[in-house]
Amino acid sequence: MIYFDNSATTKPSQGVVAIMERVLKEDFGNPSSMHMKGMEAENYIKDAAGKLAKILHCKEKELIFTSGGTESNNMAIIGTAFAKKRRGKHIITSAMEHASVYEPMRFLEEEGFEVTYLPGNEKEVVDLEALKAALRPDTILVSIMQVNNETGRLSRVEEIGKILHEYNPEIVYHVDAIQSFGKYQIHPKKQGIDLLSVSGHKIHGPKGSGFLYCREKLTIKPLILGGGQQAGMRSGTENVPAIAGMGEAAKEIYDHFEEVQGHLYDLKNTMISELLKLPDVTVNSFCGQDSAPHIVSASFKGVRSEVLLHALEGKGVYVSSGSACSSNHPAISKTLQTIHVPEELLDSTIRFSFCGENTEEEIETTIEILKELLPMLRKFTRH
Amino acid sequence: MIYFDNSATTKPSQGVVAIMERVLKEDFGNPSSMHMKGMEAENYIKDAAGKLAKILHCKEKELIFTSGGTESNNMAIIGTAFAKKRRGKHIITSAMEHASVYEPMRFLEEEGFEVTYLPGNEKEVVDLEALKAALRPDTILVSIMQVNNETGRLSRVEEIGKILHEYNPEIVYHVDAIQSFGKYQIHPKKQGIDLLSVSGHKIHGPKGSGFLYCREKLTIKPLILGGGQQAGMRSGTENVPAIAGMGEAAKEIYDHFEEVQGHLYDLKNTMISELLKLPDVTVNSFCGQDSAPHIVSASFKGVRSEVLLHALEGKGVYVSSGSACSSNHPAISKTLQTIHVPEELLDSTIRFSFCGENTEEEIETTIEILKELLPMLRKFTRH
Repeated sequence: MIYFDNSATTKPSQGVVAIMERVLKEDFGNPSSMHMKGMEAENYIKDAAGKLAKILHCKEKELIFTSGGTESNNMAIIGTAFAKKRRGKHIITSAMEHASVYEPMRFLEEEGFEVTYLPGNEKEVVDLEALKAALRPDTILVSIMQVNNETGRLSRVEEIGKILHEYNPEIVYHVDAIQSFGKYQIHPKKQGIDLLSVSGHKIHGPKGSGFLYCREKLTIKPLILGGGQQAGMRSGTENVPAIAGMGEAAKEIYDHFEEVQGHLYDLKNTMISELLKLPDVTVNSFCGQDSAPHIVSASFKGVRSEVLLHALEGKGVYVSSGSACSSNHPAISKTLQTIHVPEELLDSTIRFSFCGENTEEEIETTIEILKELLPMLRKFTRH
Repeated sequence: MIYFDNSATTKPSQGVVAIMERVLKEDFGNPSSMHMKGMEAENYIKDAAGKLAKILHCKEKELIFTSGGTESNNMAIIGTAFAKKRRGKHIITSAMEHASVYEPMRFLEEEGFEVTYLPGNEKEVVDLEALKAALRPDTILVSIMQVNNETGRLSRVEEIGKILHEYNPEIVYHVDAIQSFGKYQIHPKKQGIDLLSVSGHKIHGPKGSGFLYCREKLTIKPLILGGGQQAGMRSGTENVPAIAGMGEAAKEIYDHFEEVQGHLYDLKNTMISELLKLPDVTVNSFCGQDSAPHIVSASFKGVRSEVLLHALEGKGVYVSSGSACSSNHPAISKTLQTIHVPEELLDSTIRFSFCGENTEEEIETTIEILKELLPMLRKFTRH
């Protein structure tokens, strides 16, 4: 099996599974319990928070554990809007956000907020000039993804932070880092980020894990209310095994960060240059540092993506058409349209996404398989 | 170790850990992925839904997987209120609900809803006459827990359903079954329940798992928005290992339901009768079917609950003071006040909560330990 769908989800690492097994089998207490079984459980949470805080150069109390990236994005956006609505009701985001940002924005529009959807340019998630032009005195929140999940396009996180806080330090800056955490060094304080969403299962952690970094002294409304866990910001018994797993996953990646990142860039560069040698293939991602290290989007003229996906699957290669985590979402093609992928290629686009375990041989094999499949599939389509 | 804190959380069963390990290690795909790794993952969800639907006598599509009981309660209450607010803004609940019901109610009050908090009577979570008197033409939602988490007090689920639907079939009836699922046979359709909240980690499933049963054709608003998973009712990549674990846990319990339930009643009855033999101990739960099979609340005159809890812990017995899953919540004493526990005993109350693995010997041992500890601790307090 060649698994090139790591932006959809990743395989939990051995270390992650091991720590989860320990929590499930032995240290199963409720962290709110006052006895030792509770303490043991709480220690896993503290330990995970410590690992993550070290990576992000932040305080442990700035981390709120959630059930995943989607909840983190919902909480950041809806929580900010409801906390800041007295100051204003204008929000800015990009036109190529994930559905877990886009849908909360639509909800807020129904609730009387006004949302500006910024265009990207050929190379970036948002055009900085367009951002500057969109800022208003009543802008309360700007939410921009760091890495676009379909194409690997980037936003200039730190420069955006500067622009916002120069315009008005009260604007809350949210970064959806679900595709970028683990691929980049992210230091919210240094980069001017107020809120940062992360998902565990994109970095070899477990599904059901995620967190929201929320800058100290920033007040947002909690999304889920109850027993007052996590300083009241996210009630509900903490998902201890998943939190422990996510902490471990993050530590493993950042302990070997340069190495893993370098390897991913190599894989991407090889994939892109090999794909460009094939006839009638266009690549919607960039070599080197101009796009994310782990995502290659490519369009195969005359072949429907679903057909190619299943043909590749038949050969043991697992990829994605569009973004696997948002089923049937209209924004899928919107992202590709935004970056000017021609109409006839929108439905002929495949995403290859890598992890540190992938190899150059797997890419070689995949290219050989494509060479074999593409003429055959095109013959089919043309008849 | 004698673990009598099963209402706080339970130890995942071997079968639960085994299925979770398989998902984590092998079948780690994203259920939204179109290839085989996605299908494999999706099959675990379908399988879990099938197991739960069989237990509840409901349809699989009536189940929405959440991150746990707290999210289920939030979704049921806030989701109903926002969906039905045009019809009315009056909600009824009890005075002894868990914080994950109580806090969403407080939130809705801020949003302009009116909430009636029904008193219980000596024996029950709600007084049915008080309920009848509280119903109004603009009542849209009634939310009542089946088993009170601190005392094991019950509500008459089916009779409440009848009262509500006779008064107005449009009233949405939500049952917080977090402490009752696994302890009772629950058949929402037969019992007139529209919404039912369940948590996985209370039934030897994993933390981070739960579901909301939502009756077919009932429309409520989703709480978490995004990629449109679960028919748009709960976005976010499904927590496949936790869902699979919860399905397995439910199956294991209901496969041996009579047996486990009978054993729990036996444990409870022994515990209560033995406690009542001790001097200056009052029991706030009932023998037999008049209260939940797994919860014994007892007040120890002249001993602070925290002191007793830690003294028991020193002897290897793990219990809870009040409800472990709501840290420092004012409603804790409110429940005990509601059932007329005298003022001076409010802070002298301990909850023992059992699971099928507990034994009569463990109870015997605990009683012996109490006989040894109580006179000593009382001496301390009185000086």
